[in-house]
Amino acid sequence: MPIDPMYPKSFASDNHAGVHPTILEAISAANVGDAPAYGDDTWTSTFEEKIKETFGPTAEGFAVLNGAGANMVGLALMLGRYDAIICADSAHIATHEAGASERLLGVKLMTVPTEDGKLRPADIKSRLDGLGNHHVSQPAVVSITQTTELGTTYSPAEIAAIAEVTHEAGLRLHLDGARLANAAAFLNCDLKAVTTDAGVDVFGFGGTKNGALAAEAVVVLDPSLAHAVPFLRRQSLQLASKMRFISAQLSALLTNDLWRQNASHANAMATRLATGLADVPGVSLAHPVQSNAVFATLPPTVAEPLRRRYLFHYWDEAAGTVRWMTAFDTTPEHVDDFLDDIHKAAAT
Amino acid sequence: MPIDPMYPKSFASDNHAGVHPTILEAISAANVGDAPAYGDDTWTSTFEEKIKETFGPTAEGFAVLNGAGANMVGLALMLGRYDAIICADSAHIATHEAGASERLLGVKLMTVPTEDGKLRPADIKSRLDGLGNHHVSQPAVVSITQTTELGTTYSPAEIAAIAEVTHEAGLRLHLDGARLANAAAFLNCDLKAVTTDAGVDVFGFGGTKNGALAAEAVVVLDPSLAHAVPFLRRQSLQLASKMRFISAQLSALLTNDLWRQNASHANAMATRLATGLADVPGVSLAHPVQSNAVFATLPPTVAEPLRRRYLFHYWDEAAGTVRWMTAFDTTPEHVDDFLDDIHKAAAT
Amino acid sequence: MPIDPMYPKSFASDNHAGVHPTILEAISAANVGDAPAYGDDTWTSTFEEKIKETFGPTAEGFAVLNGAGANMVGLALMLGRYDAIICADSAHIATHEAGASERLLGVKLMTVPTEDGKLRPADIKSRLDGLGNHHVSQPAVVSITQTTELGTTYSPAEIAAIAEVTHEAGLRLHLDGARLANAAAFLNCDLKAVTTDAGVDVFGFGGTKNGALAAEAVVVLDPSLAHAVPFLRRQSLQLASKMRFISAQLSALLTNDLWRQNASHANAMATRLATGLADVPGVSLAHPVQSNAVFATLPPTVAEPLRRRYLFHYWDEAAGTVRWMTAFDTTPEHVDDFLDDIHKAAAT
Amino acid sequence: MPIDPMYPKSFASDNHAGVHPTILEAISAANVGDAPAYGDDTWTSTFEEKIKETFGPTAEGFAVLNGAGANMVGLALMLGRYDAIICADSAHIATHEAGASERLLGVKLMTVPTEDGKLRPADIKSRLDGLGNHHVSQPAVVSITQTTELGTTYSPAEIAAIAEVTHEAGLRLHLDGARLANAAAFLNCDLKAVTTDAGVDVFGFGGTKNGALAAEAVVVLDPSLAHAVPFLRRQSLQLASKMRFISAQLSALLTNDLWRQNASHANAMATRLATGLADVPGVSLAHPVQSNAVFATLPPTVAEPLRRRYLFHYWDEAAGTVRWMTAFDTTPEHVDDFLDDIHKAAAT
Repeated sequence: MPIDPMYPKSFASDNHAGVHPTILEAISAANVGDAPAYGDDTWTSTFEEKIKETFGPTAEGFAVLNGAGANMVGLALMLGRYDAIICADSAHIATHEAGASERLLGVKLMTVPTEDGKLRPADIKSRLDGLGNHHVSQPAVVSITQTTELGTTYSPAEIAAIAEVTHEAGLRLHLDGARLANAAAFLNCDLKAVTTDAGVDVFGFGGTKNGALAAEAVVVLDPSLAHAVPFLRRQSLQLASKMRFISAQLSALLTNDLWRQNASHANAMATRLATGLADVPGVSLAHPVQSNAVFATLPPTVAEPLRRRYLFHYWDEAAGTVRWMTAFDTTPEHVDDFLDDIHKAAAT
Repeated sequence: MPIDPMYPKSFASDNHAGVHPTILEAISAANVGDAPAYGDDTWTSTFEEKIKETFGPTAEGFAVLNGAGANMVGLALMLGRYDAIICADSAHIATHEAGASERLLGVKLMTVPTEDGKLRPADIKSRLDGLGNHHVSQPAVVSITQTTELGTTYSPAEIAAIAEVTHEAGLRLHLDGARLANAAAFLNCDLKAVTTDAGVDVFGFGGTKNGALAAEAVVVLDPSLAHAVPFLRRQSLQLASKMRFISAQLSALLTNDLWRQNASHANAMATRLATGLADVPGVSLAHPVQSNAVFATLPPTVAEPLRRRYLFHYWDEAAGTVRWMTAFDTTPEHVDDFLDDIHKAAAT
Repeated sequence: MPIDPMYPKSFASDNHAGVHPTILEAISAANVGDAPAYGDDTWTSTFEEKIKETFGPTAEGFAVLNGAGANMVGLALMLGRYDAIICADSAHIATHEAGASERLLGVKLMTVPTEDGKLRPADIKSRLDGLGNHHVSQPAVVSITQTTELGTTYSPAEIAAIAEVTHEAGLRLHLDGARLANAAAFLNCDLKAVTTDAGVDVFGFGGTKNGALAAEAVVVLDPSLAHAVPFLRRQSLQLASKMRFISAQLSALLTNDLWRQNASHANAMATRLATGLADVPGVSLAHPVQSNAVFATLPPTVAEPLRRRYLFHYWDEAAGTVRWMTAFDTTPEHVDDFLDDIHKAAAT
Repeated sequence: MPIDPMYPKSFASDNHAGVHPTILEAISAANVGDAPAYGDDTWTSTFEEKIKETFGPTAEGFAVLNGAGANMVGLALMLGRYDAIICADSAHIATHEAGASERLLGVKLMTVPTEDGKLRPADIKSRLDGLGNHHVSQPAVVSITQTTELGTTYSPAEIAAIAEVTHEAGLRLHLDGARLANAAAFLNCDLKAVTTDAGVDVFGFGGTKNGALAAEAVVVLDPSLAHAVPFLRRQSLQLASKMRFISAQLSALLTNDLWRQNASHANAMATRLATGLADVPGVSLAHPVQSNAVFATLPPTVAEPLRRRYLFHYWDEAAGTVRWMTAFDTTPEHVDDFLDDIHKAAAT
């Protein structure tokens, strides 16, 4: 369904945005003559250094092609043949990666229901009973999403508490950071505070939803694991041959805090939208707005006319909950126009 | 190992080339506002139409991210749990995809030794003995590469003969077309002649080695198979969220025969190189030059000084065979300079 | 932990019983000279005929080595690369097969919470939303267990209702029949009534828990699926070379209704045990007794002294629920002695 | 194809033999009352002790259900996601396990052609070039078969030499010992000499082909690997619930050297057969007879009439090579009758 040209702004996903001009320029700037393939180039060296600058000297970064790829490569590092992943039942790896966890990793997802998409230490402890029982998949990794699929954000202390219980039980901590930038922007901390400093072992750092064309990083903080990434990335179909163009995108995001600039803007637009909803009768927020996502509950009589003009998805159609996403390119005018239309729909 | 700036041209791989300007422009041109993700956009519709124009009305095209991805998605369509693929022992799927066939597809590769990288009908027949025997992996797909990993090219009649024996035995025919454009350019035929018209069931159409940034297509000619591609592409980590930028690359290649222009040029540069080798003492061609690859055998005394100045790989170090690849951006001057250096090395 | 020789009867599992004498005799009787391996023998032909006699002329039976094997081979027949199984969250395939579903089948288990281990049609409908969405594992099979892991039993009409909603949605129905005999004995119907006649497509028929040494059958009722079993059985490590000894066990069970004799006896012993619990203070049944399993809730002060004398497991230790199983070899005296000890423990 | 009752002895496979009486008695003797399932019984403890007595104190034995299962469980212990196995191209894991290596293990088999089924150190070295190259499956295990699929036998020194080159390269050594007993009997050494003492890391010890009903052991000599076996055995469908009956078979074989008695007898019958072939015109041995297998090359005019009376298989029909196997129950009269018929067929 193409967007109605009269209402060109999508609130369906930060994936609907295009490429940030600075990132497109970085791609063009890398298009100079020949360069070795598969990462043996200077753009990739620069990216690797920027990962270390950002996440600390033990961090090893590996560029991949998409978020599901970052998850699968990162998780595969830590999972044997009879292992399981503990995650929220709303986790992207559990719900929207077409069974890649089961098929590519071959492991069980031990999902935990949550209200806000966030795992708690007690959730993890509740899934450890089977450790040592050979009839049962063995929990080996805890995977959390930051920001979560519900737009909520873990504080550094919350992640550290999860890391503690995870490591005490002999498991490792994975973080799906497709929107890690939005979390750090919301928390007003640096990226290291919610990853390296909080005890994460392996995570993905998302670029695509934050203005890149197609670029994500797998970042490995446990040095015993990094050697396997090149093999797993190649086998998992996540190795770009003309790698310089992927690395250049990630380096652009990590230069002059472009990642924060884009994410803060997107977050601010979500907050603007949420704020503007406050006085719309019949519309309420389903989750606190802690990133670039607004989950709102509204009656079908409001939602349906809006859906004829704007791209967005129901999150839970039965409950009347929709998800509205903002992006680096969402303008205040986009939001205000949208709010106007919401008001009109609610008033009808 | 970075390229010596004095000798900036790589002969190691067509992957070392950058992005063709027309394709980079197509990417920029697609960067206009928002668009639905995952292929529900007008750039992707255009790409799908161009696939039908090029390969016939039954052809369904699906954009993916790299060549190994195109192979795995295309093959997965045709392979059950206890199946096998018959292919040349030099096939990329057998040698350079880090075991993706075995791990992601879970199937056996029944490899056949060949002199020139090309399967013959008799090779296929020789691998069918186990059909029906429950102790043995069941051949279900024949996979050929066009042009082959050794730079040789199947004629349309050769492919048709393979298709005939393949289909008679109840198997399906897959073609790894990472360099399909080079084959059609060499054969001076259209792309349909070596795919649809020759009886191929599923193939990959490569963009990346022919001037794209990162773009390949899985093309399905058997209509009973196409419905599964979106699921397999998603699960295999080959679905781009900002799909329009992948589709735009492929459409650019399929517009005004850019694919042929690039491939013909690369082929011509390989021929120029091969021709120039004729009078170099001690250097001989290991395979006929039928695309953009030159396989040459030369003594280490010649190869080693060249390797200090140019990027290229040994194919078979013990035999003294090297692979030199040309690309859309290789110039006659690049070739002539290289030939000069080869002459000098051989004269020392 | 060996059983205390003073209390030699185990109530932990019907797997703790030995081999029924008739079945052991059948094994010995098959030990006469040589016979072709892998099923090409007369004992296996007899077994195959008995399967048809029991389940109808379209039924094709394949002997395998254990219950998890029967499940994996049967399910693999019906599952593609991006499929999912809908099952109760207490299903053996979900809880106690060490992740075989995820690793060997490579599919997602869409588990549904239930009170009594039984899926209902509405449960299945509630898991079909993702059909056709390429981001989501595609439900392809519904799997039910008869009797369930909680000792409850589906009536033929309940299975037929499940089959109807399953088939309407284009899915197939699998039944884990590790204790199918106990169900038919409880329902006082023949085995066909709860399988073939109720619309099941593929099921396992358990022998081991009902007096065999190690023997289960995969039974395929959908004729389009049977051809794949020999390959999947071989690949899944479930093919016995000296097959006659497995087939002979299954034939013995299917001769003179030995299956029913064993199962009815075990069921009767469970009923005797449950009946005897009625007047034990503090002890209650957690589920209705509809087979050879008694789930009882009792205080730790009662459970712990019993556990020092008898082998049995907690099902839910926090809730104080234990599982007591009876078998073909459980005697009324065993039950009465056990009840005596329960009474004594409860009186302390 | 049932055996012609006039010629009841099969020379097709040692799997065509029945169960040795001592082993059947051991099964019956274990059928006394209840016992814990899954190996927590005294018969299994006895088996584990006998493994240590036979193979040394570091050996840990795990009973499984068949030879392919022993291979898959043993190999899975040592293989990661992007690994490969180096083996002879005649290896059972490569040829007759229906692709289990590729599907269940997910790894590549790097097969080496051999004349006699035996790998040499140089064969292993020839497959190590790709170590460290992320485009290539990484050799991690060398797997040899003792006795080989061609009936030949490695000496302890030959295995030690293979172990040395394997370990030097950082790989591990696996041995498929489906007919390990025949090898030790032929070599007149104990079982430890060709396993523990020769540097093997993990191996299978076959019972079924040597008189058991269905029983094999996975034996782990590298103590760092043993902890994973229970999980892998369960997940790989190789865990018997009524384990005592499997353990009892293996213990019987390991008691009073029954394994050697059976294997020596079978070997002697093969030698008797081979010796008797010496003066048959047109019949020659294809491989030296070093176990219970005779590979003979004979013209179709001899083979075909024999095949109408006896069960046996062509090994290479084009070459006219057949495989004749003897077993614990082959009598001198069986061999002599068979030789008579061979003489008659050759004389026609």
